[in-house]
Formats: sequence, structure tokens, C-alpha cells
Amino acid sequence: MIKNFTYAIIGTGGIGGYYGAKLAKSVQDVHFLFNSDYEYVLQHGLRIDSKDGDFQLSNINAYSSSWEMPKADVILIGLKTTNNDLIKSLVTPILKESTIIILIQNGLGLEEKLNRDLPNIQIGGGLAFICSEKVAPGHVCHMDFGRLILAPYSISDTDKWKQIHNDFIHAGIKAELSKDLKTSRWRKLVWNIPFNGMTVVLNTSTKELVSNESSRELIREIIWEVIKAGRACGAEMKDSYADEMIEMTLNMKPYAPSMKVDFDNNRPLEIEAIYSYPIFQARQHSQPMPKVEMLEQLLKFISKSIN
Amino acid sequence: MIKNFTYAIIGTGGIGGYYGAKLAKSVQDVHFLFNSDYEYVLQHGLRIDSKDGDFQLSNINAYSSSWEMPKADVILIGLKTTNNDLIKSLVTPILKESTIIILIQNGLGLEEKLNRDLPNIQIGGGLAFICSEKVAPGHVCHMDFGRLILAPYSISDTDKWKQIHNDFIHAGIKAELSKDLKTSRWRKLVWNIPFNGMTVVLNTSTKELVSNESSRELIREIIWEVIKAGRACGAEMKDSYADEMIEMTLNMKPYAPSMKVDFDNNRPLEIEAIYSYPIFQARQHSQPMPKVEMLEQLLKFISKSIN
Repeated sequence: MIKNFTYAIIGTGGIGGYYGAKLAKSVQDVHFLFNSDYEYVLQHGLRIDSKDGDFQLSNINAYSSSWEMPKADVILIGLKTTNNDLIKSLVTPILKESTIIILIQNGLGLEEKLNRDLPNIQIGGGLAFICSEKVAPGHVCHMDFGRLILAPYSISDTDKWKQIHNDFIHAGIKAELSKDLKTSRWRKLVWNIPFNGMTVVLNTSTKELVSNESSRELIREIIWEVIKAGRACGAEMKDSYADEMIEMTLNMKPYAPSMKVDFDNNRPLEIEAIYSYPIFQARQHSQPMPKVEMLEQLLKFISKSIN
Repeated sequence: MIKNFTYAIIGTGGIGGYYGAKLAKSVQDVHFLFNSDYEYVLQHGLRIDSKDGDFQLSNINAYSSSWEMPKADVILIGLKTTNNDLIKSLVTPILKESTIIILIQNGLGLEEKLNRDLPNIQIGGGLAFICSEKVAPGHVCHMDFGRLILAPYSISDTDKWKQIHNDFIHAGIKAELSKDLKTSRWRKLVWNIPFNGMTVVLNTSTKELVSNESSRELIREIIWEVIKAGRACGAEMKDSYADEMIEMTLNMKPYAPSMKVDFDNNRPLEIEAIYSYPIFQARQHSQPMPKVEMLEQLLKFISKSIN
């Protein structure tokens, strides 16, 4: 018998807003936590402009505090990792013994950290290969891609895990199950490490980076540092990533990665999860990442000017 | 018997303008080549605002073409290295058999290149440890330091070389003779490589770079790459440079290095002489410079937006 899950979206931005809205549209029971957009969304609902078809959720379950939300079977975390210190207090009111938390975030070491805070809760990782951005209050713009890889960190209820996957598929999300979270997270870093930081440091777009000979060569070298670091840490990494990522990015619309959007909006940068922790992990396995480290150092300098 | 030399200044900017004006003020026979400032200088002369005392040269030997200049015993090149392709044609009208050309420029490989163009002319290098800048037409501002190291590349007339040194000393310039051009040029790069590029990439001042923890650490690592590269190429490099350069820069007034001034004025950047050629030389001696190379790559991207 198929049980209908209660979903909670913690962090309703470009990622949480898009995937949560897709689930809600497919008649799942979805509850959204909002911060500054709460009043706006109560009046106007949630608007998704998507390359796969625009839609509007006029009446959504919106909350300004998780204490008012129902207990959740599944919690999707769409927060920036710079706010991960808030996760424990935000989810505590909606936790059940069987709750599964999925961190749909970029970076490394996120599940480990949450597991230290909530050792008895099942945790999984979500890797979103998507260009999606909150462009205004209650207004998400989904520009390209959309694939979501789900990988277990401490999932004991595998039937429930599979059912979550089914719910995503049913909602029209290109969701895939992976058994290897480490490999999935490192593979995501192959794109995130070069393009997030470089668009900020050079104040440019992904397209410019791969169109210019010098920056394309630098991107290629940085990708190779990530491939080698991932391998040293035990992830399965392919030689073909450098060519693939550059080719893909050449064919993408010019795009501002999430860190560039954060930078342009004077928001904190996810340096720790995307740079510092991977560099630390690689160093633990005796694999230096000099150019990635330099990118981290430049970003840390730049982030000092952000409040 | 002491002979009075005829000096020609090719490139009358922050460097050529300052040293040339000091020589002219000490009653040497100095002839200045100007480009865009020619008409202005004919009317108003050359003004030097110096930390050691301001002065004005009201009547100077100014030219807009080297074809009108007298043959020179000594030619000081104060051009940007990005214009070095012009040296041969600029100096040809004023060369004698005995002329000595001194390249007061930043970077590596400059004398070698000029020697290929003018194999029978004596060439020396000049390393200016100075904060000096042309701030307006015919107006040079000398803010700090001023030491000039003179090192021979293909000097056969050592008496003349010493006399030039004496002329500089007599003019109140802290000139020093070095026998090791390679070491002198690499030592200069110890400061130029980190600070020129980093102020451009991060759009900041030298003071900010050494005050921020992340960028100071990066500067330290870059200096160590230069120390190791210099040693691999046969230069004498001290372990103490990293501490010394950072300490000195902390105590300097906030300063825009020449590359930052060029960038702010939308002029070509001296990437080839300060980055590409040293990286090439180091690689020839199996010494990688990954962070310097990344700086070069970032600068090349940035320089694409100039002109």
C-alpha cells in the first residue's frame, strides 16, 4: 500500500521552491517555510517560470515559522549552506522518528555535519543539476536542466527512500537514485568548483569563461584538480569530465551560478562547503589542489566586502 | 678625464620622467622623447612632485620624434614592455657605436630580446625600486623609495658603465651596481609578480592585500613560488623575501602598482614580461609555478576587456 507523505520545504528559493512546487502541483502534501517572502506568497502564491512550462500555485501551505508546520515525513533542505547552522533548530519542530531529511545543496561534508547534530534521523543528499533562481518574492525562474540525484547517507528505510524517488518522478522531476553519495557530491563539484568561483572572481558569465582561451584552460586545469582530489578521496571520477563540462557549458545559455547570484545580491558565499571542505578532504588524502586553493583565497578576500 | 654623456630618455613616464629629470637637474645633457605630452611639455615643462623635494624643469630638451634627437651616449628606456617592439625603431636614429641602452623596466627576458634585435649594442638592465607615476601630462609624482639597481647584460665598456653610475649618484639617485642581472631581475619579480597582478584581479590596493589574512597567505605562497623558480633558473634568492616583502608592503603607503595603474587607465598590461616569460623560464628548469600561472590566466582574461 502506498502511503502519501507529508513534505516540508525548508528554504524556498530557486531549488526548494522549484522542486517543492513540482511536488505540490502533482498533488503531494507539501508545506513551505518562507522567510522574507512569507507575506507576499500568502497573497500572491508561488509562481514558477519554467522552460518545461510555467505554472502558478495560488493556494500553497506557506509558513513563516516551522513551529506552525505539521510534522513531516520528508524534509527537503533548500537553504544556502552558509545557513546550515540553522537546520537543527528549524527542523526540530517537524521531526518524527521516521523523518528523512534530504540536503539539496552544493558542497561536501554537509550530511556528516547534520548527522552529528541529529544522529538518529535518516539523512540523504540531493544533487540538483539545474539552472534555477528565485528572481523576485514568490517567483522562481527555472532556466535549464533539472535532474536531481538522490543518494543515501544514513537511510535505513529503503522502501521509503524509493517511494520518495517515485514521488519525484510522478511530479515530473528527472530524479535518479545513486548508491554512492561521495561520488555524486564530488561529481557535482567538478562543475561547481570552477564555475561558481570563477564567475565571481572575474565578474563574468559561464559562457565568457569557456569562450576565452586563458580562462577555459584554467577551468580545465581546475577540473583536473577536482578529478584527482575526488579519486584520492575514494570517489569514482572519469577522465572525460573536463571536456564534458566545458562542452556542456559552451552549449548552455550564459548563466550566473548560484555563487555569482549570491555575490551580485551581496549575500554570503558558500566558500566553506564548495571550497574549504573539499580542499581539506583532499589534503587529508595527500592530494594538493593549488589552483582551487587560490580560488578559495581570492573568494575569501572578496567575501570580506560582503556584509 | 671625465667625459660628459648625452642621455636620451625613451618613454618619459613615471620612471623615465623621474630619473631623467633628476639627471637633467644635476646639469647632465638629457634629451626626452615624448608622445602625447609633447605639446604640453613644450609650453609648461616637466614637473616632478617628489617626497625628496618637488622641482620643475621649465626648459627641457623635448622631442616628439627620435629622428630630431642628438645621438646618445646613454639611452634610458622607460617604455612599458608592451611597447618593446618599438625600441629598435625608436633608438636607431640616436645610436652610436658606443651607445649603452639601459632597460629600466619590469620583467624578464627583455635584454635577451633587444640583443637579438641590436646584437652590436651594449645593453644593461635597470631595476627601479620606486613608487612613481605620471599623474598628468608633464607631471610625475614620486611617492616613495627610489633605489635603482644597474646590472650589465652585454656591457664591454666597464669604465663607461661606472661613469653612468656616478652620474646617477651625482644626480641624487640611490643607484647601485650589481654584477648579476639575472638575480636582480628575479629579486624584483618577488614583489612585482604577487602585487601587480593581485591588485588588478582583486581591484584593490597593496595595503588591503597584506592586511587581509587570505590574500596575505596567497601572496606569501606566490612569493615562495618566485623564490623557488628564481633558484631553479640560477638566481640567488633568499628565504627571507616573503616576510620582508609583506612587512615592507604593510609599512608602505597604500599603493597602486604599475599594472594596476595601467588597468585603471585602460592600458595594456605587462603580462608577458612579468608573468609569461618567468613562468616559461621556470618550466624550462622543471619548476612549476601553479599559482603564478593562475594569476597569469586571470590577467589574460581581464586584459581581453581592455581596448
